Amino acid sequence: MKIYLAGPDVFLPDAVEVGRRKQDLCKRHGHVGLFPLDNAVDLSAANASMQIFRGNRAMMDEADAIVANLTPFRGPGADAGTVYELGYMAGRGRLCLGYSNDPSVYRDRVATAQRLTERDKVFFDEQGLIVEDFHLADNLMIVHALELHGAPLVIPKTVPTDPRHDLSAFEACLGLASARRS
Amino acid sequence: MKIYLAGPDVFLPDAVEVGRRKQDLCKRHGHVGLFPLDNAVDLSAANASMQIFRGNRAMMDEADAIVANLTPFRGPGADAGTVYELGYMAGRGRLCLGYSNDPSVYRDRVATAQRLTERDKVFFDEQGLIVEDFHLADNLMIVHALELHGAPLVIPKTVPTDPRHDLSAFEACLGLASARRS
Repeated sequence: MKIYLAGPDVFLPDAVEVGRRKQDLCKRHGHVGLFPLDNAVDLSAANASMQIFRGNRAMMDEADAIVANLTPFRGPGADAGTVYELGYMAGRGRLCLGYSNDPSVYRDRVATAQRLTERDKVFFDEQGLIVEDFHLADNLMIVHALELHGAPLVIPKTVPTDPRHDLSAFEACLGLASARRS
Repeated sequence: MKIYLAGPDVFLPDAVEVGRRKQDLCKRHGHVGLFPLDNAVDLSAANASMQIFRGNRAMMDEADAIVANLTPFRGPGADAGTVYELGYMAGRGRLCLGYSNDPSVYRDRVATAQRLTERDKVFFDEQGLIVEDFHLADNLMIVHALELHGAPLVIPKTVPTDPRHDLSAFEACLGLASARRS
């Protein structure tokens, strides 16, 4: 299977190395991993970001499946670019798989960052906005998209030593892809 | 046009009222607004969140277009559920429109929340993760998706008095939808 490797991994200082490790694991499982940073982009060009978008979209259009790293990124939930890509692949009817290296639930993460107020069993954040509270790892659209377009979100029992680099949950997704293929 | 009304508006305490205002504006522009909270959901049911997902997906499948409220929500960028829905609609080849009531660029919002470090013109956040820096309002996948699957993100020149309730940019999107129809 050709698998699009989505995730905020591209924002790691060692992104290229992480991408290579993911591609090696894909190969070991009989898949081909398509990693965004393999697209040729002239970062000095005025339209660099559009080149990246077009490259990523072409990779997704070529892929049979997506494995999305949905580990929370710079906020209580998953990286926005990754979530967009998950939606795009679901919309195109491709196999959607994903993992998060943070086993906590969304509401608890929000409650760690700010004080919540409860009124009639509904929780509000400090801006007075309702906090989604279905005991899910992230926004329900993300979690249920995986269930209906692929397989349930893969989550470790405890936070790995290095959640940004640990690929155990990623590899579990590859196993799910292999099971789907056969 | 049937327009799916995506956004974190559903997390406002007066979400129902905001949805009604959006639907009234749609009607005035000759469109039909499909608002997520109009789906019948038994919130006391164990599978309430799945009911919401299925209801939203059915609404999206029925819609010709999406107008996404991408105003930053509980973090430096747009609401995850909304971003998922934007991706889904782009993947299905529907007309994608969106607005944000915050005219600032992504990097500046991150820099407001935490101290950034610059190295060789690349900015890193306090976790050592690269901060996307293309002078765009949000993650490039969101911004360019709108350009290629609909029309550029609509942003006001200055922050409205009440960014959570101001519908000027939303109404501008309806105008874009009308122009596309004719």
